[in-house]
Amino acid sequence: MDDIEIDEVATPELDDPVLIEGLPGVGHVGKLAAEHLLEEFDGELVRRVYTTEFPPQVNVDGDGAAELTCAEFHAVETDGADLLVLTGDHQAGSNKGHYTLTTTFLDVAEAFGATRAYALGGVPTGELVEEYTVLGAVSDGDLIEGLEAVGVEFRPDEPAGGIVGVSGLVLGLGGRRGFDAACLMGETSGYLVDPKSARAVLEVLADRLDFAVDYESLEDRAEEMEEVVGKIQEMQDGPAVPDDDLRYIG
Amino acid sequence: MDDIEIDEVATPELDDPVLIEGLPGVGHVGKLAAEHLLEEFDGELVRRVYTTEFPPQVNVDGDGAAELTCAEFHAVETDGADLLVLTGDHQAGSNKGHYTLTTTFLDVAEAFGATRAYALGGVPTGELVEEYTVLGAVSDGDLIEGLEAVGVEFRPDEPAGGIVGVSGLVLGLGGRRGFDAACLMGETSGYLVDPKSARAVLEVLADRLDFAVDYESLEDRAEEMEEVVGKIQEMQDGPAVPDDDLRYIG
Amino acid sequence: MDDIEIDEVATPELDDPVLIEGLPGVGHVGKLAAEHLLEEFDGELVRRVYTTEFPPQVNVDGDGAAELTCAEFHAVETDGADLLVLTGDHQAGSNKGHYTLTTTFLDVAEAFGATRAYALGGVPTGELVEEYTVLGAVSDGDLIEGLEAVGVEFRPDEPAGGIVGVSGLVLGLGGRRGFDAACLMGETSGYLVDPKSARAVLEVLADRLDFAVDYESLEDRAEEMEEVVGKIQEMQDGPAVPDDDLRYIG
Amino acid sequence: MDDIEIDEVATPELDDPVLIEGLPGVGHVGKLAAEHLLEEFDGELVRRVYTTEFPPQVNVDGDGAAELTCAEFHAVETDGADLLVLTGDHQAGSNKGHYTLTTTFLDVAEAFGATRAYALGGVPTGELVEEYTVLGAVSDGDLIEGLEAVGVEFRPDEPAGGIVGVSGLVLGLGGRRGFDAACLMGETSGYLVDPKSARAVLEVLADRLDFAVDYESLEDRAEEMEEVVGKIQEMQDGPAVPDDDLRYIG
Repeated sequence: MDDIEIDEVATPELDDPVLIEGLPGVGHVGKLAAEHLLEEFDGELVRRVYTTEFPPQVNVDGDGAAELTCAEFHAVETDGADLLVLTGDHQAGSNKGHYTLTTTFLDVAEAFGATRAYALGGVPTGELVEEYTVLGAVSDGDLIEGLEAVGVEFRPDEPAGGIVGVSGLVLGLGGRRGFDAACLMGETSGYLVDPKSARAVLEVLADRLDFAVDYESLEDRAEEMEEVVGKIQEMQDGPAVPDDDLRYIG
Repeated sequence: MDDIEIDEVATPELDDPVLIEGLPGVGHVGKLAAEHLLEEFDGELVRRVYTTEFPPQVNVDGDGAAELTCAEFHAVETDGADLLVLTGDHQAGSNKGHYTLTTTFLDVAEAFGATRAYALGGVPTGELVEEYTVLGAVSDGDLIEGLEAVGVEFRPDEPAGGIVGVSGLVLGLGGRRGFDAACLMGETSGYLVDPKSARAVLEVLADRLDFAVDYESLEDRAEEMEEVVGKIQEMQDGPAVPDDDLRYIG
Repeated sequence: MDDIEIDEVATPELDDPVLIEGLPGVGHVGKLAAEHLLEEFDGELVRRVYTTEFPPQVNVDGDGAAELTCAEFHAVETDGADLLVLTGDHQAGSNKGHYTLTTTFLDVAEAFGATRAYALGGVPTGELVEEYTVLGAVSDGDLIEGLEAVGVEFRPDEPAGGIVGVSGLVLGLGGRRGFDAACLMGETSGYLVDPKSARAVLEVLADRLDFAVDYESLEDRAEEMEEVVGKIQEMQDGPAVPDDDLRYIG
Repeated sequence: MDDIEIDEVATPELDDPVLIEGLPGVGHVGKLAAEHLLEEFDGELVRRVYTTEFPPQVNVDGDGAAELTCAEFHAVETDGADLLVLTGDHQAGSNKGHYTLTTTFLDVAEAFGATRAYALGGVPTGELVEEYTVLGAVSDGDLIEGLEAVGVEFRPDEPAGGIVGVSGLVLGLGGRRGFDAACLMGETSGYLVDPKSARAVLEVLADRLDFAVDYESLEDRAEEMEEVVGKIQEMQDGPAVPDDDLRYIG
């Protein structure tokens, strides 16, 4: 197998498509957001990207059939813009792999005519988030105004540690080859999968690209997560009432 | 030394041979199963595969002679089918290495005319196993029926974390190049070398490929393991005197 | 992207320039010293070096614009000598990467006509430093006398573990290709960013290359660090109750 | 810099030289033994091997001059045989690096006409060693008899985990290309640098190759080590005498 292999599943005509990257990362915000787009719209699988940078792994589907792990591009048509949504289960396994893989992703997007890219992700706050601010970073300062207009915040020198992984390189390498690239980072505690943060990111994206999307299924996942968190807290706190009762009875 | 070197020890004519992979993994189930086939049948060493992906290591044999670590293919004739059994002491040492090494293994099998492959392994349950179910995954849904007929279970999306290592890639890369590939995973606690799970895997394999094999030596190893487990439990429980005392008092 | 990419931002004529390397390391001494030169003199960015050895990362500037992480060469003219100052946020990510990256750095310096190199860094003492001795090591014994004349100390077989990273290779690889290379290592506790040690290193460098530089901003940073250290000590010592008692008694 | 660079320092005529490998490992037994040969005989540096597999590091000598880390071959003439002694401060930094580096070492030895190789090392026992047995392993069973005659022990399947690193590959790769290769492993606790084990290894080597060597300086180092061990034990046991005194006074 070559270091990178691309299956060309379909090659539909797309109208000035926008690359939307949502690989796993902090709070799985980007992944949740990108997968939500695939669920809500009737996307078409167009490319599979296999690479020796991914773990040597197959995933088993609902029938028991196994598929070699890969990243996938889906073409998604919305009212506002054509999207090229990049999802997958893994980042690259090495520094160099991140560079070569992101280069491949940008090559694929470019071949479909994309000149704009949004890298979706989360930014960890370390504490429970009440208001889901979306932080932005761009490959070119000219992009800031349009994003601030839809509520994205830009803070000097933040995130402090820079932006790492494929999202960072979509900006860094994308910008170097002429993409208008932005990273939209939903604030998230960093401890849990965060569908609410994913919704916040999608809202500014939808606003910016002028499409509408339903959030009900993301809300359902957010509620599930809250139940999980509630149960964890209960387990840590212990069953407070019965103890009191027993003592009272005693 | 090249990244991969293959010693062609012998090249017998094989009749539609089936690749059986049994490299180390969970509970050493695959390795035990493959080695049991080599012990029970009169196999012939046909290929040695050396690679810089293996640890820089020699193993010392019973006489004090050292052999560079390698993976080996043995040709095994059974009543039901000719087998090409792949064994060894190591998986690859890197993501990329797993891909290149499995590609080499499939090349070797293909050169012998193999079009079918079984990757043998274990799937960890995290608790003591009473009934040794064998879980399956396949490169092509058409293979499921034949395996269910011999008792293999297929469960949606299991194993949850996918199948990793050479076994996973025998399915993933094998499937991509046209092999009919299946992974047979014996349930095992995951904490111990598990000859009983290896037997369970071999039973379905033998059933599927229509050959008979004796399990006595595997049973002996299973008993040895149980003695070991018994001793460990004894050591953890401490000396049995207090129990006796209590009974005496009682 | 290639493994290493060099942006040629400007190519001014330099007069026998001296390579000054200040990448991150012990106490960030070298980095602080090199960045101080850039702040104090009116340097010109001449080269950016991108490499797959650096983390896959962009850094966000004060406006929200993101730049792919890189190492930078600035040309700096001083009274005493032209300098080619190498700074950045990262060392290489692998053994081999250090060798290839340092080779590239020396290539760049050589293309500007440099034949001399100073690698700036810190040497950890494990305890608070009162007097900031600067330890030296050289690619060629003939360089020792000139450095001892400006106060650099040479101690047999020190630092004990050798000099690692780009600084070490500027000496090792630089020396092998004919550079007169020296490493100037300011003593530092090793626990904290140390502007005082950076100043000590700069003082001997300025003396040796016969230029003058103001240290006020480094002093300010040193004071900030001391405040930080003071606060940490306070927190460790606990609340000041005993003091209050004493006052009460008084 | 290339992945491997060889400086040809001198190329004396050697008579059927024997490669003696003594790189760092368990108890530094091999390194101590090889360096002792260089101290006792008037060896001549013949090759330096630089590689990107070694850490990016220079070592500072007694004068303050820095040398890029490397492995060295010295030609050593003894009464019994010409030796080509390989020493250095590092093993390779990766699996693959061990293979390529050992291949280079064997190439160098072969260019000098060597057909025999001894890899010197230690084998950890996990407890204090009273009698310093030397364990052997060979590339070819024919070599066993000659080594048993000088006291080397061969134990079936030992060392249990195989022999790893350059020593293992001198046997494994050396054997594959026709070297008569043996590994001599001195028993050692594994916790400390062990000059006594190094002496035991050298005694069987000298006996086998029919040369005489003085062990006084190794004995001195062994005594130093014993003092160190004594002090460590004292520190762990606490100051026994004062306690007694106190009790007496009490």
